Amino acid sequence: MDCASLLGTVREKQPLVHHITNWVTIYDCAQLVKSFGASPVMAHAAEEAADMASLASAVVLNIGTLTTGVIDSMKLAARAANVKKAPVILDVCGAGATPFRDRMVAALLDGAKIDIIKGNASEIARVAGEQVNTKGVDAGSVGGDMAKIAGALAAERRCVVVVTGEEDIVAGERVLHRVKNGHELMSRVVGTGCMAASALGTFAGACPEDLPRAAVAGLVCYEIAAELAAENSAGPGTFKTLLFDRVASLTPATIESQQRVS
Amino acid sequence: MDCASLLGTVREKQPLVHHITNWVTIYDCAQLVKSFGASPVMAHAAEEAADMASLASAVVLNIGTLTTGVIDSMKLAARAANVKKAPVILDVCGAGATPFRDRMVAALLDGAKIDIIKGNASEIARVAGEQVNTKGVDAGSVGGDMAKIAGALAAERRCVVVVTGEEDIVAGERVLHRVKNGHELMSRVVGTGCMAASALGTFAGACPEDLPRAAVAGLVCYEIAAELAAENSAGPGTFKTLLFDRVASLTPATIESQQRVS
Amino acid sequence: MDCASLLGTVREKQPLVHHITNWVTIYDCAQLVKSFGASPVMAHAAEEAADMASLASAVVLNIGTLTTGVIDSMKLAARAANVKKAPVILDVCGAGATPFRDRMVAALLDGAKIDIIKGNASEIARVAGEQVNTKGVDAGSVGGDMAKIAGALAAERRCVVVVTGEEDIVAGERVLHRVKNGHELMSRVVGTGCMAASALGTFAGACPEDLPRAAVAGLVCYEIAAELAAENSAGPGTFKTLLFDRVASLTPATIESQQRVS
Repeated sequence: MDCASLLGTVREKQPLVHHITNWVTIYDCAQLVKSFGASPVMAHAAEEAADMASLASAVVLNIGTLTTGVIDSMKLAARAANVKKAPVILDVCGAGATPFRDRMVAALLDGAKIDIIKGNASEIARVAGEQVNTKGVDAGSVGGDMAKIAGALAAERRCVVVVTGEEDIVAGERVLHRVKNGHELMSRVVGTGCMAASALGTFAGACPEDLPRAAVAGLVCYEIAAELAAENSAGPGTFKTLLFDRVASLTPATIESQQRVS
Repeated sequence: MDCASLLGTVREKQPLVHHITNWVTIYDCAQLVKSFGASPVMAHAAEEAADMASLASAVVLNIGTLTTGVIDSMKLAARAANVKKAPVILDVCGAGATPFRDRMVAALLDGAKIDIIKGNASEIARVAGEQVNTKGVDAGSVGGDMAKIAGALAAERRCVVVVTGEEDIVAGERVLHRVKNGHELMSRVVGTGCMAASALGTFAGACPEDLPRAAVAGLVCYEIAAELAAENSAGPGTFKTLLFDRVASLTPATIESQQRVS
Repeated sequence: MDCASLLGTVREKQPLVHHITNWVTIYDCAQLVKSFGASPVMAHAAEEAADMASLASAVVLNIGTLTTGVIDSMKLAARAANVKKAPVILDVCGAGATPFRDRMVAALLDGAKIDIIKGNASEIARVAGEQVNTKGVDAGSVGGDMAKIAGALAAERRCVVVVTGEEDIVAGERVLHRVKNGHELMSRVVGTGCMAASALGTFAGACPEDLPRAAVAGLVCYEIAAELAAENSAGPGTFKTLLFDRVASLTPATIESQQRVS
């Protein structure tokens, strides 16, 4: 798959990516989008959520620290994006951890068209109705075959499902890709999952006509930058600092030589 | 203009700078104030906004992720600062992006005395009633002469107007300064605009008797630190990390030799 | 005191540490917990606060940017933790700055069992009913003997009281320890106080059976990492980045050789 050319598209189109996200990693989500050469905007007031989404090329929703007021804004933003056919990405951060989160995920999935559902294995399994052991917002254990679970959820919801992990799964209604880039250090840094959703939003905003391809390219570019950052990192602090540098300086040649997609 | 001596005043007086700001860059705003040797405090509950502002030497308001509840607290804080004649800085972050933001800016400008209005070119033009093309919170295009627009707004509102950009404009009722410090990397880092407002608040809190001078000195010191940070940066991640270091270690000699004000 | 072995316990047990904290340093609190090898989760919706706390090994509450809605969630989380005997840590950030904060601290202390009260000298003195001069969220001046004040508060509230500063005090009902690790740079970085509370939560979650020991070990490990980070720092920016690296790479040998506890 040609991921390198999509990075060029992102830098040329500079999509505006509207986020309604959590308060923990909100800066990192914005800086990731900006490092890719696109424009982030974060706005969660119910009075402007739809207006802001109408300006955007993609909308990223993340339930990491959700409250009921913010959920209403998420629905408004998602529906406004649906109208203009801008992709909506939902990071089901912490799904399964509490009944409230599960209810809110269901409300979002039923209240608007979600184009990409993204989570770690236990979160996606939970959304798909499987039995899971969660541990807060970190990945828990799952019994089943994640590719099958993701594919079934994609078919049921007629969307793309992205499962992040050591090996990422991108499941569309008829396609299945695996992304093997990334680095173990990512699991020791808060926000790497949220930033993955922002990478999906950035690339989906630049390539709304082929969301599985956008998802794969977004993950590949983000995770190659993470690999490069890890090379010179002494731990999670320097890693995150360098991650933004490496995203900003990614070249097509690096992506072509380092991408690992099947 | 003597900017270096005002840095000394900041470090000696250590003004308390109360912020009601957005959730994206709230840490960076606080750390910038602290790096200058002053004291940041962030508090947005309506029950304490006025009390906290009463303790402060300056109040910084930023509408980046505003909601109606926070707007009420902003008004309370601004009025409390007005009473003790502590400068109030308003960052009209994202003005023009949605009707809600425009209404809220108007409500703040009409609900209390704002001493410094700060924004990028399209935001300030919008507040001044001009036609603009905005793109979320990034600077859009403006047709008119920004110095004239800023000067007219300053005269109308009897305040200082600061327009940030490659060349910053500081317009008072009778004065006009241009600050040519800064670095292109700033536009690729989330929060550099918000931090500029915090620099204004820090210096205004130390020098409330001459706000145009405080504004120029705040921008000069902040942007020289940015130039120094950019010298050793490999991208937006390392740039932001080094920015705080360089602000903390600024010397009067560096400011005198590097300031570019007209 | 054997602090090194407790670090091993943290890494082995990987306690889930639930936070309801402020919007300024929420990322740093999460990343500190994760750097120690434990699992952070941040969730403040009233609908899930108790459920999330029920999953956790410790709950950390911080009133830095509190609002009334969040206070209700804090009470729910603390009570849920009380039921399962998971330690509750309260960072009385900014106590004394406004009447609202003082009322909210009182409401939290009376509304649930708090196991560790943590603050700087002026905050703890205020909670203990002493006269203090506060300055926002930075430490103000206190007249009395902090060890006595902390000990009396610990006895009155039947909890552990931690006073952070150049020399930290850990006062239990019958014990008094002093931790002399740490570095002057910490006072110039936003969030070092909040992260200390997260270190307490992480170690308390791993060693709920001896909270004074957990508190001392948490402070020692965190502050030795800060000393190591300061060695290679050029200012507050690089310091904070390196802090996470050094926490993640702490070794028992380093702790044994560098701990300064009396």
